[in-house]
Amino acid sequence: METRDQIYEGKAKILYATDDPTRLVQYFKDDATAFNAQKRGSIHDKGVVNNRMSERLFRYLEENGVHTHFVERLDDRRMVVLRLKMLPIEVIVRNRIAGSFAKRMGLTEGGDLKRRILEFCLKSDALGDPLITDDHIFALGLVEEGVLAEVKRVTDQVNGLLTAFCAERGLQLVDFKLEYGIDADGRVTLADEICPDTMRLWDVKTGEKKDKDRFRHDLGGVEEAYQEVLARVLG
Amino acid sequence: METRDQIYEGKAKILYATDDPTRLVQYFKDDATAFNAQKRGSIHDKGVVNNRMSERLFRYLEENGVHTHFVERLDDRRMVVLRLKMLPIEVIVRNRIAGSFAKRMGLTEGGDLKRRILEFCLKSDALGDPLITDDHIFALGLVEEGVLAEVKRVTDQVNGLLTAFCAERGLQLVDFKLEYGIDADGRVTLADEICPDTMRLWDVKTGEKKDKDRFRHDLGGVEEAYQEVLARVLG
Repeated sequence: METRDQIYEGKAKILYATDDPTRLVQYFKDDATAFNAQKRGSIHDKGVVNNRMSERLFRYLEENGVHTHFVERLDDRRMVVLRLKMLPIEVIVRNRIAGSFAKRMGLTEGGDLKRRILEFCLKSDALGDPLITDDHIFALGLVEEGVLAEVKRVTDQVNGLLTAFCAERGLQLVDFKLEYGIDADGRVTLADEICPDTMRLWDVKTGEKKDKDRFRHDLGGVEEAYQEVLARVLG
Repeated sequence: METRDQIYEGKAKILYATDDPTRLVQYFKDDATAFNAQKRGSIHDKGVVNNRMSERLFRYLEENGVHTHFVERLDDRRMVVLRLKMLPIEVIVRNRIAGSFAKRMGLTEGGDLKRRILEFCLKSDALGDPLITDDHIFALGLVEEGVLAEVKRVTDQVNGLLTAFCAERGLQLVDFKLEYGIDADGRVTLADEICPDTMRLWDVKTGEKKDKDRFRHDLGGVEEAYQEVLARVLG
């Protein structure tokens, strides 16, 4: 597959066009940002970890009936993915209280929820990815009702699958972010990446954070945590 | 009715116990605050306007089948209301784009929506009344599902009634805030006040703002706007 022009550069990834109009190449950088890019840094080999881990998790989800954009891994930092029309929202799943939700609501991190929370944010760096509701989405015509219903259905399926996968590896899936797009056939398709940048993973026994919170909050051992998670996920 | 101890003082109102355990007296102050009380001031006779206007609108809603906390008006600044167990949320209805929603989403005030938005906020001055979703409400056990469904049903009914009432008086109901409680019989009951503090009202012909935005944004003619709205509502 021939890689052509760069069509998008985000905080952690670059997308390139290819000679196949239905395919892109997704390149994983080591750049790390937090708090809406107010904090910037780099995590050694993060791109390699996130590429390998996303491959493993996309394959696992595909095996269990989830349609994803993953096609194949090319090398350490690149994978081939389907070219999608991306939805303008981020989807967040919260299984326990943590992060921005804890702060916004004045709650203690680690607290239990009566049930999982699905949250949507408008994808807008300029606006700080504001929280939006179903009503906002429909009133502004951001996503059609049928598409959002499918996004919710798939997200709950993914949550069940990833929670079980992580639990088998001694990791609690506290929360995570997903992005979706529509493929050439009009199908809702899981996109982006699934890795310690986009998930909160706590060691089941020790409670230790094994994700980007180590970078966000200067907890140390960032690279080690990423490598350890990758080893557990591949193991 | 004998007024007893003050049981609550908010930014714009004071609630007093009475010799009847099922009744409170609600007193309307002239104090005005905006932007989560970062801006403070006073609007001459606002309490009188809001008491009279709330009386008129609660009576109108009751006549049309909405159960409210209004019992009777006592004098210029006081009304008797039912004692409720208040829900810990504020309900916002948006018929057009304005205010904090426009700012948060980077949208132009006055823009159209494909449909009305119902929004919920956690009542918490300390947290700045954060936006919350149905999932947040249920996951934290803030309001029961059946109660929230009833709140939504009544709110849509109120929106239809108030929109028509305002339109007949040359006012567009842009958005408004409601609060609800549960009465002694377990019924969802509309509470608080309905007035230019809690609604955005634009003159249908001129587009002029006839509400607390004149205070928020130092537009001048604040008292005049409140008196004019009251005259239209009573007329």
